[in-house]
Amino acid sequence: MIFNVLTLYDELINEYAKTGVIGRAVQDGTLSINAVNIRDYAKNKHKNVDDYPYGGGAGMVMMPQPVCDCVEAVKGDKNTKVVFFTPRGRVFDSSVAKEYAKYDELILLCGHFEGIDERAIKLCVDDEISMGDYIITGGHIAAMCFMDSVSRYVDGVLGNDESSEEESFENGLLEYEQYTRPYEFRGMTVPDVLLSGHHKNISAYKKERSVFVTEKYRPDLIRRDENKNE
Amino acid sequence: MIFNVLTLYDELINEYAKTGVIGRAVQDGTLSINAVNIRDYAKNKHKNVDDYPYGGGAGMVMMPQPVCDCVEAVKGDKNTKVVFFTPRGRVFDSSVAKEYAKYDELILLCGHFEGIDERAIKLCVDDEISMGDYIITGGHIAAMCFMDSVSRYVDGVLGNDESSEEESFENGLLEYEQYTRPYEFRGMTVPDVLLSGHHKNISAYKKERSVFVTEKYRPDLIRRDENKNE
Repeated sequence: MIFNVLTLYDELINEYAKTGVIGRAVQDGTLSINAVNIRDYAKNKHKNVDDYPYGGGAGMVMMPQPVCDCVEAVKGDKNTKVVFFTPRGRVFDSSVAKEYAKYDELILLCGHFEGIDERAIKLCVDDEISMGDYIITGGHIAAMCFMDSVSRYVDGVLGNDESSEEESFENGLLEYEQYTRPYEFRGMTVPDVLLSGHHKNISAYKKERSVFVTEKYRPDLIRRDENKNE
Repeated sequence: MIFNVLTLYDELINEYAKTGVIGRAVQDGTLSINAVNIRDYAKNKHKNVDDYPYGGGAGMVMMPQPVCDCVEAVKGDKNTKVVFFTPRGRVFDSSVAKEYAKYDELILLCGHFEGIDERAIKLCVDDEISMGDYIITGGHIAAMCFMDSVSRYVDGVLGNDESSEEESFENGLLEYEQYTRPYEFRGMTVPDVLLSGHHKNISAYKKERSVFVTEKYRPDLIRRDENKNE
């Protein structure tokens, strides 16, 4: 899977592409992260990509020309889907992540400053995505979040021993609590059933804890899932 | 404001601390981002920080010892609040961002692999935060999202001309569309009212577009705000 990340902060994206599970997948060729600097497509002599907003107001707005030229240069004659990160986009969640994991290639367009000229969005963007109901300084942070979440569902990114079937948000539940060595830490021990070797009991315990944790922290997830199944 | 980020990927955090608005605030001393590698606190000879989960299951779990030792070393004798990123946490939004912008110093604890031993969470964590209903490969991504959003509300991070009062999610509305030069781009022109110089009309137009955009993309935000005010 190829992610083309169109941003002003390509160095951060390149550093991200070296990190952890994602870095391993990039190394072995399962993922490709291609950071492209939108500024390289600015046509004015100072390589400016932003200008004052029409009608006044805070901040600077990215001009449509460098954005559209950059998207079109990366697209070439392919019909690659363009995702733009914006607070007004549809709210990202695990089901959106799975939907995007099916693509072979995506273009992730990052807005900076106060955002991108609306005409560039109309002309170049296929889907608008929001990572949550908060404002960040730019789309580069959203792009890392998006790639991180989508990549987990791309075949070969997680090892077999890391499969995400028991992960939070699968089946509308949060994950059970995790424990590892040592058995006793500062007077606190691991629940004994986890050491029992009795697979059926362990599985029942994990399910029970999953329901407990979800009821305690995010009862809305259970209600949402029930409504979906009705 | 000081962010201490406890992670395995301190290099990515350091690169983030050089980027854009955040980088400028770090340069001028308004923000300080201190990336600490949890692995430096591993006591075993291979500097392992993770081990198999008790009871089996996918992935590795971070051991409580390096995590707690790292948190305590960074805390010293201060009572710095510790935030841990986890899908079960309370869901982050702009109001949580504003709440955290009031602190002088925070410790952001990043989980990696399958998560952190539950005992370390019980012993060391003050607040659990989720950036959205999706799974990411580690808390380092969440920490960047969190810092990015919180920092915008820290005095001095945004310039006067970048103030966030007309931003999305303020007053339960999304922001109006933005336009900048040129006036005409590929046959599309800027709405004329924005060039009128008539402040009252411009302000009314922006408000109207803000409501239109919110109704179109996120009608739930308007309903949520109405319920809040009742």
